[in-house]
Amino acid sequence: MKDSPFADPMMTKDDVAAMVLVAKKKLGLSWAEIAEKTGKSAVFTHSAAMGLNSMPEDAARNLVAALGLPEDAVEVLMEYPTKIWEQAVPTDPCIYRLYEIVGVYGPTMKAIIQEEFGDGIMSAIDFDMAITRVPNPKGDRVKVEMTGKFLKYNDW
Amino acid sequence: MKDSPFADPMMTKDDVAAMVLVAKKKLGLSWAEIAEKTGKSAVFTHSAAMGLNSMPEDAARNLVAALGLPEDAVEVLMEYPTKIWEQAVPTDPCIYRLYEIVGVYGPTMKAIIQEEFGDGIMSAIDFDMAITRVPNPKGDRVKVEMTGKFLKYNDW
Amino acid sequence: MKDSPFADPMMTKDDVAAMVLVAKKKLGLSWAEIAEKTGKSAVFTHSAAMGLNSMPEDAARNLVAALGLPEDAVEVLMEYPTKIWEQAVPTDPCIYRLYEIVGVYGPTMKAIIQEEFGDGIMSAIDFDMAITRVPNPKGDRVKVEMTGKFLKYNDW
Amino acid sequence: MKDSPFADPMMTKDDVAAMVLVAKKKLGLSWAEIAEKTGKSAVFTHSAAMGLNSMPEDAARNLVAALGLPEDAVEVLMEYPTKIWEQAVPTDPCIYRLYEIVGVYGPTMKAIIQEEFGDGIMSAIDFDMAITRVPNPKGDRVKVEMTGKFLKYNDW
Amino acid sequence: MKDSPFADPMMTKDDVAAMVLVAKKKLGLSWAEIAEKTGKSAVFTHSAAMGLNSMPEDAARNLVAALGLPEDAVEVLMEYPTKIWEQAVPTDPCIYRLYEIVGVYGPTMKAIIQEEFGDGIMSAIDFDMAITRVPNPKGDRVKVEMTGKFLKYNDW
Amino acid sequence: MKDSPFADPMMTKDDVAAMVLVAKKKLGLSWAEIAEKTGKSAVFTHSAAMGLNSMPEDAARNLVAALGLPEDAVEVLMEYPTKIWEQAVPTDPCIYRLYEIVGVYGPTMKAIIQEEFGDGIMSAIDFDMAITRVPNPKGDRVKVEMTGKFLKYNDW
Amino acid sequence: MKDSPFADPMMTKDDVAAMVLVAKKKLGLSWAEIAEKTGKSAVFTHSAAMGLNSMPEDAARNLVAALGLPEDAVEVLMEYPTKIWEQAVPTDPCIYRLYEIVGVYGPTMKAIIQEEFGDGIMSAIDFDMAITRVPNPKGDRVKVEMTGKFLKYNDW
Amino acid sequence: MKDSPFADPMMTKDDVAAMVLVAKKKLGLSWAEIAEKTGKSAVFTHSAAMGLNSMPEDAARNLVAALGLPEDAVEVLMEYPTKIWEQAVPTDPCIYRLYEIVGVYGPTMKAIIQEEFGDGIMSAIDFDMAITRVPNPKGDRVKVEMTGKFLKYNDW
Amino acid sequence: MKDSPFADPMMTKDDVAAMVLVAKKKLGLSWAEIAEKTGKSAVFTHSAAMGLNSMPEDAARNLVAALGLPEDAVEVLMEYPTKIWEQAVPTDPCIYRLYEIVGVYGPTMKAIIQEEFGDGIMSAIDFDMAITRVPNPKGDRVKVEMTGKFLKYNDW
Amino acid sequence: MKDSPFADPMMTKDDVAAMVLVAKKKLGLSWAEIAEKTGKSAVFTHSAAMGLNSMPEDAARNLVAALGLPEDAVEVLMEYPTKIWEQAVPTDPCIYRLYEIVGVYGPTMKAIIQEEFGDGIMSAIDFDMAITRVPNPKGDRVKVEMTGKFLKYNDW
Repeated sequence: MKDSPFADPMMTKDDVAAMVLVAKKKLGLSWAEIAEKTGKSAVFTHSAAMGLNSMPEDAARNLVAALGLPEDAVEVLMEYPTKIWEQAVPTDPCIYRLYEIVGVYGPTMKAIIQEEFGDGIMSAIDFDMAITRVPNPKGDRVKVEMTGKFLKYNDW
Repeated sequence: MKDSPFADPMMTKDDVAAMVLVAKKKLGLSWAEIAEKTGKSAVFTHSAAMGLNSMPEDAARNLVAALGLPEDAVEVLMEYPTKIWEQAVPTDPCIYRLYEIVGVYGPTMKAIIQEEFGDGIMSAIDFDMAITRVPNPKGDRVKVEMTGKFLKYNDW
Repeated sequence: MKDSPFADPMMTKDDVAAMVLVAKKKLGLSWAEIAEKTGKSAVFTHSAAMGLNSMPEDAARNLVAALGLPEDAVEVLMEYPTKIWEQAVPTDPCIYRLYEIVGVYGPTMKAIIQEEFGDGIMSAIDFDMAITRVPNPKGDRVKVEMTGKFLKYNDW
Repeated sequence: MKDSPFADPMMTKDDVAAMVLVAKKKLGLSWAEIAEKTGKSAVFTHSAAMGLNSMPEDAARNLVAALGLPEDAVEVLMEYPTKIWEQAVPTDPCIYRLYEIVGVYGPTMKAIIQEEFGDGIMSAIDFDMAITRVPNPKGDRVKVEMTGKFLKYNDW
Repeated sequence: MKDSPFADPMMTKDDVAAMVLVAKKKLGLSWAEIAEKTGKSAVFTHSAAMGLNSMPEDAARNLVAALGLPEDAVEVLMEYPTKIWEQAVPTDPCIYRLYEIVGVYGPTMKAIIQEEFGDGIMSAIDFDMAITRVPNPKGDRVKVEMTGKFLKYNDW
Repeated sequence: MKDSPFADPMMTKDDVAAMVLVAKKKLGLSWAEIAEKTGKSAVFTHSAAMGLNSMPEDAARNLVAALGLPEDAVEVLMEYPTKIWEQAVPTDPCIYRLYEIVGVYGPTMKAIIQEEFGDGIMSAIDFDMAITRVPNPKGDRVKVEMTGKFLKYNDW
Repeated sequence: MKDSPFADPMMTKDDVAAMVLVAKKKLGLSWAEIAEKTGKSAVFTHSAAMGLNSMPEDAARNLVAALGLPEDAVEVLMEYPTKIWEQAVPTDPCIYRLYEIVGVYGPTMKAIIQEEFGDGIMSAIDFDMAITRVPNPKGDRVKVEMTGKFLKYNDW
Repeated sequence: MKDSPFADPMMTKDDVAAMVLVAKKKLGLSWAEIAEKTGKSAVFTHSAAMGLNSMPEDAARNLVAALGLPEDAVEVLMEYPTKIWEQAVPTDPCIYRLYEIVGVYGPTMKAIIQEEFGDGIMSAIDFDMAITRVPNPKGDRVKVEMTGKFLKYNDW
Repeated sequence: MKDSPFADPMMTKDDVAAMVLVAKKKLGLSWAEIAEKTGKSAVFTHSAAMGLNSMPEDAARNLVAALGLPEDAVEVLMEYPTKIWEQAVPTDPCIYRLYEIVGVYGPTMKAIIQEEFGDGIMSAIDFDMAITRVPNPKGDRVKVEMTGKFLKYNDW
Repeated sequence: MKDSPFADPMMTKDDVAAMVLVAKKKLGLSWAEIAEKTGKSAVFTHSAAMGLNSMPEDAARNLVAALGLPEDAVEVLMEYPTKIWEQAVPTDPCIYRLYEIVGVYGPTMKAIIQEEFGDGIMSAIDFDMAITRVPNPKGDRVKVEMTGKFLKYNDW
């Protein structure tokens, strides 16, 4: 099937992610600068550019223009992704520390959230996140802020 | 060895955690109210009271006094814990959503952190967290804020 | 700690689940009949009585009265559960077939749902389910109906 | 063996699935519209077109004609598949929520089914499913309906 | 809850299985002899007596009478079991060899069954099995015979 | 090493299995018909043709002649295979049901075999199997018959 | 069921293994000395005394007499065991090294055995083993010798 | 990087293993005959030729000469391997039986070795093995002999 | 068997470990102080007192005397342990960091060791370790030193 | 996308690692000699050259010059790596022994470190390691020294 007109006619999210990384390197842009062009946050822009979220049309057009990507990439950036992530705890130390945090503090977060809001969850779908630097004389700190809609359990 | 004077002479962190939950229920206190008495945040107070962190002596004394726990509990609360957490992704929906977030956004967080700070990690040891409610007409939102010291990789 | 006044003073959801099963057997009631008394559906009543959902106060009072359970059980039925379920696919054939269905049809369900609604999910929190019998000359059929709120992915 | 006349002479179900997706995109058809052409439901049409079910000959001919696929695809669509699905619970949030539902409600479904029908299972083989939208002022809902033949355990 | 009238009032399938093994040993009966009394096959009798199948009322009454078990055991033998079996391939050599057979010959069995019957499965629910000795001068052989209803895949 | 005279000069069992499937399709033969030509049973013929058993020389010559395969295939069919099979329980429903049977009935089979024969196993090496159709007015049944030499545990 | 006459009336293989270890310690016997009394090898005697093999009646009577065990232990030693062993590679360094040997040399052993004997296996059932000390000026060596019957694969 | 002068300039142990197998087949040699030429045992020769041990220079030169391999293969055969082996118990019946033996007899081997030698292990590094045929009227037997240096645990 | 004179007559290594911890707490001793009394290092003393190594007789007598343990504990401390450790990477952050180090640096350590010593390993049996504090103005450092005998691979 | 100007335009860390190994072999250099040229330790140089650490610019320039690598390799060596390591315990005996050490001594190391320093960890980020040979008449020993900054747990 390799030479058939049907084989691989579409650019994939992986293709676009690779193109973004190359263009970003050539143009010497940071994620913060790219985010300014897309009109979305740095976190969301990175996540959607790497193929783990669907980018709204405007933002996709802006990204393609800013980085000089082919027109077809707009549609690919807008596609609904299948979110595959490492369910085994990852080994990269920077990502592992995040798992350690939800591992150690997960039951605490559940207790504090449900005491305040009732039985339910913080949505990971209707959700946003920001990451910033907090200057500190003993060594600067990373600050992570997330908000998610509270969803109450249904009874029927 | 069951009746020997050496068997199980110590109160464990699990024992204290159970006592805290009973007393909290009897006294009708929330974690926010208990935290006020310990002088620590609600997140840290819950985590240490449940046995996943070591409580400083003052806070431990305050907690024992406020909840009417036996004196020996002070020392137990101060002990250094062995932090055992579910490495298989947990099934409780409230905790699972937190894993989904670090699963989906982990590589993004690494990219944003390391672009800003250089090669390294956000510490999960020199670390703090707060959880608050954000009123919102479409449904209130849960807000999670964490900061951790940035640690740079060593070369030698 | 076994004889301390602090040890195990609370009835647990497992205790209540066991009491419900005994009383149900003694009184010869079906889940449909119990559900009539709680004023909730049979599916929700079973799930909450077995400790996997939090029962609203009215329903809990009705259940306790109908089955002659101790008063303290009301509060236990209302507690917010930690939902622990078998993440390894279970071996019981009746439950395994349900996993096989979502295993085989999961990608199809995602495709059909997202084509109709856009990028997002069917909530498992704001959710309900009914199970009924469909008479059929070739052998009666089980009918399962579920509805869940559609949640759209956020961008920011 | 790469150039031998015996190597890879057959189109596979994966090849046909890829061709279907390309043609569907080019022709701008939804699964509901394709299902109308095959004479089968959208759920079954998607599942068989993606290679997880065997399509009856008529439906396969209709599909091939409607999408302009090569004639050989008819036979491929009719082949009996080997159904390989993710036994580890998948990470895509849309599919994960379905596993969470059968995880949390599986024992309830077994109890309700077996109380009504006796000891046995709902077949995942003699089975069908439909997915529809239920308009709702608080946000539309996804409705999933499945029926499967009840099979009683044999004794001998 | 240990001394409450609600705790553990029921005999379990494990209790009955233990009683059966004791009585069988005391009475010096083989499974073939017990099966004669229940009116069911040795394979089914063992499986239901050990708690992995539900025994029909007559057979259960016969078993209880023949082995001198308490009356309550009849109802327990009739209960619908939750079939939990080792999904990790077991280590006992006698059972492991059975897994090795379905591991090595599984794809062959699928090919031969589906060529003869069409796309579908041999039911493990509407199913029976017999085990007999086949005398052989080079060493006697174990003979295992199973039949299961063929179930065709549905399309809709 | 790609162009070295040493690279890949041998036809593998996978190559031959692919050739067999193509020729079988072209010639429109069933496994029963092929088995008639090899002089071996359908089960053994399929297993050895697919590379999971070593075919005796005569049978291999017959198979190669009947299907028009290259002469070198005889030797490949005779090679001793490395039997690799899915130790995780497979998801294909037709094969899964076989695992469910040995999962549910494994301990029963051990009890019945060892009561009849003494401590030991049914060999999976000195072993044969047949699969046939049993007509039945309520739906035809699949019949699987296996015999294996009984091997007694050694003591020394 | 705890006080019922049916509960736990039998001595188990674990009970006997514990008794053997206590008596061995009290009497100051080595496994070689115990083996002399049973009339079996040290390896087999240890394996059967620890409950992983069935001891022949004579040997069992000798063991019970030599160690002063209760009479009932004879029958327990003769029972057919269920052989459960660690399928995950064990961590004890002495046992791990044995796994490392079959891990590293397994394919070599298969190649050498099958070249000499044809397609088949060395039986682990009709099998024996001896362990001895080989004096060596650079440090004594452990010698392990095993023999097992060769079993040829069947064709049919 | 595919055409860079740096890409893949070295023959690997896998390349050499493949060359050995082809030459062995062409020359019609057994492992025993090849071992005679290398001056090492058949077991060690196979293990090192397949890439799981480092061959001493003399033996490597002899092997290359005897099989007509390219000169560069000498150095590759001498390289220190990374020993990767199946930590999941393998499914090939010939290799599986070896795991079953160390699984069932591992604790026995530990007990017998440590009683004779003290607390320590049989080295899997300073180690050798031989495999021979033992004629036997009831069927020939495979004999495996291994010796390894005893290493005592250190204290300090 | 619970009341038989054969049941549990021996103190176990777990019993002794528990006694050591209680006595250490009562006497207010550090591991360094206890090690001074045993005449062994702190690392080895802790490991053997916790049951993961066999303590030489002198050291065991010293420990028992110093902590006021029962005489029988001497023999228990001298027993050869079965070393069971967490093969899944542990979650306690202090222990996890050690796994991360051997995970990240393992291949480097192999390369450096084998370049210096030839093909072989650093023994984990003939092995010792010390842990000390290194004062440092930017924060004190933990120093871990280990030495193990180099063992060369055998050929034969 | 294979021929697009966007595909694979960057040298990867794997490419550079392969180039380093080839050049090292051609030039006949040891890691100690290469380390002298980079101005970093042998352990760090190997780790960064193999792609598991980020090399400082000076060291990277020195390495590229010394080995005659292409200029682009400098930037690749400086990139921040994603550290992926075997979380399943590796099978190579040289690396396995390191895991065995932290498996057996991990709890001891935690106890000794936390007794000396308080509740916290030895950093694996702000960390260094050296490996040397210790001559010894009974066989030379491998010495591994590591130091890591102590990090205290935060409370807030």
